[in-house]
Amino acid sequence: MAKKITPRTLKGFRDYLPETMIPRRNIIETAARIYQSYGFVPIDTPALEYLEILTGKGSDETDKQLYSFQDKGGRDLGMRFDLTVPLARFVSQHANELGMPFKRFHIATVWRGENTQAGRYREFMQCDFDTIGTLNISADIECTLVIYDLLRAIGFENFTIHLNNRKVLSGLLEKLGFEEKTVPVLRALDKIAKIGHDAVKAEMGETAGLSPEQAEEVLKLTALKGSNLEILEQIAAMVAGTAKGEEGVSDLRLVLEAAAAVGITEKNLVLDVSIARGLDYYTGTIWETFLDDLPGFGSVCSGGRYDNLTGIFMNNPLPGIGASLGLDRLLTAMEQLGMLSDVKTAAEVFIPYFDKTQLPAYLQMAKTIRSAGIGVEIYPDPKKLGAQLQYADRKGFRYAVIAGADELSRGVCQVKNLAEKTQEEVKLEDLASYWKK
Amino acid sequence: MAKKITPRTLKGFRDYLPETMIPRRNIIETAARIYQSYGFVPIDTPALEYLEILTGKGSDETDKQLYSFQDKGGRDLGMRFDLTVPLARFVSQHANELGMPFKRFHIATVWRGENTQAGRYREFMQCDFDTIGTLNISADIECTLVIYDLLRAIGFENFTIHLNNRKVLSGLLEKLGFEEKTVPVLRALDKIAKIGHDAVKAEMGETAGLSPEQAEEVLKLTALKGSNLEILEQIAAMVAGTAKGEEGVSDLRLVLEAAAAVGITEKNLVLDVSIARGLDYYTGTIWETFLDDLPGFGSVCSGGRYDNLTGIFMNNPLPGIGASLGLDRLLTAMEQLGMLSDVKTAAEVFIPYFDKTQLPAYLQMAKTIRSAGIGVEIYPDPKKLGAQLQYADRKGFRYAVIAGADELSRGVCQVKNLAEKTQEEVKLEDLASYWKK
Repeated sequence: MAKKITPRTLKGFRDYLPETMIPRRNIIETAARIYQSYGFVPIDTPALEYLEILTGKGSDETDKQLYSFQDKGGRDLGMRFDLTVPLARFVSQHANELGMPFKRFHIATVWRGENTQAGRYREFMQCDFDTIGTLNISADIECTLVIYDLLRAIGFENFTIHLNNRKVLSGLLEKLGFEEKTVPVLRALDKIAKIGHDAVKAEMGETAGLSPEQAEEVLKLTALKGSNLEILEQIAAMVAGTAKGEEGVSDLRLVLEAAAAVGITEKNLVLDVSIARGLDYYTGTIWETFLDDLPGFGSVCSGGRYDNLTGIFMNNPLPGIGASLGLDRLLTAMEQLGMLSDVKTAAEVFIPYFDKTQLPAYLQMAKTIRSAGIGVEIYPDPKKLGAQLQYADRKGFRYAVIAGADELSRGVCQVKNLAEKTQEEVKLEDLASYWKK
Repeated sequence: MAKKITPRTLKGFRDYLPETMIPRRNIIETAARIYQSYGFVPIDTPALEYLEILTGKGSDETDKQLYSFQDKGGRDLGMRFDLTVPLARFVSQHANELGMPFKRFHIATVWRGENTQAGRYREFMQCDFDTIGTLNISADIECTLVIYDLLRAIGFENFTIHLNNRKVLSGLLEKLGFEEKTVPVLRALDKIAKIGHDAVKAEMGETAGLSPEQAEEVLKLTALKGSNLEILEQIAAMVAGTAKGEEGVSDLRLVLEAAAAVGITEKNLVLDVSIARGLDYYTGTIWETFLDDLPGFGSVCSGGRYDNLTGIFMNNPLPGIGASLGLDRLLTAMEQLGMLSDVKTAAEVFIPYFDKTQLPAYLQMAKTIRSAGIGVEIYPDPKKLGAQLQYADRKGFRYAVIAGADELSRGVCQVKNLAEKTQEEVKLEDLASYWKK
């Protein structure tokens, strides 16, 4: 007998078993439904791209994590590590066909050879949506509503979207005479939850040259208290007189007012000037979204506005705004919060193969029930009924529809509610309508 | 200005623009719905596997097409080239958790560095479903029904599932004393449509040692005429006395009878003993599915029964049966048959951003319409109405809902049917129910 190969997955990779894949598919479908309900359209791009396209705008960090290789034709390739670079390439390549504005969503797998500590995987799915080709604040407002609808539709009530606008910080730095130092100041500010006030203050001195007083002035932003509009008034005073800062305040006001008008309360949307998002390319509105019941878990839906998506490909840069739902992270969160059931079937009804000679009757019954939109599984072997019902229990079916030769000759079957352990006799001709009620 | 990178995809790879991705997503969703309605559950596996797992049972042909490389940790990896090898690895690795029987579907991308002539792509999506762990013919019957329901649900009426059973040929060869030569005979037989009767006959002589008379006897199988049951009687006579052959005839009879019992006619299911399927590992029932309106296009859904899925990983081999829907090939077929529309939106309703000051009202209207399950896109810029309606036409929206300050002050809007070029005034409070009717 030949030596067996050990069946195993690569480090940092995982299989999705049915009990995890069923809710995962539900999230994917929910996200697609919400995106489409706002007019975002689906696209797909290849998993493999020319390496120069993936590294064109990358940081050393992403380059290091990239899965790259030469194909048999000697081309340098890489596997996509996010959906933003492919979007930039896609929009640049097809700009004429697409027309602007262009609103797309993209649900797809990405790969990063990350450190696998801390439960991170090297393969995960992202669910991005973006509106390209408009600077109008209506897009910022709409994306905020999408994030809200998305989390609600997936089943969350206790979440908080943290809203900020990069222009506020730019305005403040302009006032302090440090407008060129936005990036290092942002980088420092972004660490406040992790390293604390004093360390951030020190870093602002070292990397951006802010005096302790100036750093304190910036750090005031992170300590504002009150309702969204109260905080906004304090910010307005801090940045008054700078064009950028006033723009940021106006943008924030429009987003907050519109969100309130359609019923989003401060339970789910807060103005938080301390969120900065590490990435340099954001230029306006930014969001991070936290689960109230999992403090410390990190953001599950983040994004923002950027001025120049396509600069490395086109002379005419396109602005855009959008966010990314971290699907597999969200799934982990739902697991931790006990939001996932243990059900291992996507069908509701189980038909035991009870009487060996009656397969055609079972097939007909299944067909009838399916016509009512209900999934039905027939057990494939005429084993003992007890063993078959154990299988149904283990998988989590809700009903068993049982019929022997006697029942079938009378034109009936027994419908057993497996959870409630009740049973009733139903006419075969009523099987479809039984589930329609 | 830095040199621009040319935005382009790799040879053999393609982007899916919205007008293609919308129907592609519909097919994916339809396939998932049909699979689930029969109790198949979703799984997912990594795109990357240890190379030894992918090459364990491969042919030279698949090895040559494999995208393989070393990762930064020095591991030899490959990208999956089908969903069967990952299934074998998955089932072997998780056998205890899964339990048997196990019915799964898997919709995922695979990669093959194939010759890109003839419109073949190097990245495509497969939609596989399989029942593992049973030898019972009920699984063969069920899979036949799934293929039928799948094609119907996607929108086809003119298709033909060709059914065969490997045991028939084995029985015949046993009778001729060539039972060891099944594989080369199958390989030759498989080419009959391509190279014709005489060339196949010659090949059977060369590779399997069949005399011209013996080859003719085998080739008779491909020329049988009549109804499914008439053909079956002819086969029964040819293989009579061999255990394998009689089993094959009995299996075919059970599948044909059960399919007929649930209403599948010979328009859509024919017994065709000439289909052989190139792959060695099939051992019983096999199917290929052809589109009547695209002769020569090749099979869009193929598969069969195999005795030993997991042999390279486990001492206890598991049997299974299943088929694969060639999703991207099917999409090409639908394109050729004019079955795809040119619609570039997944939302039905378009709201022009008509009056600059009324964004909150438009947001509220959109929310109301969405509450009826209808997708709504609001144009992001308050441009001229004509330009916005051109955009709506180009994308293929069905309705535009137009409201200026005057309408809004009266609590109404204009609902324009863009295809029929009709228009009616609707009260804002009736907007949800307007689409429910």
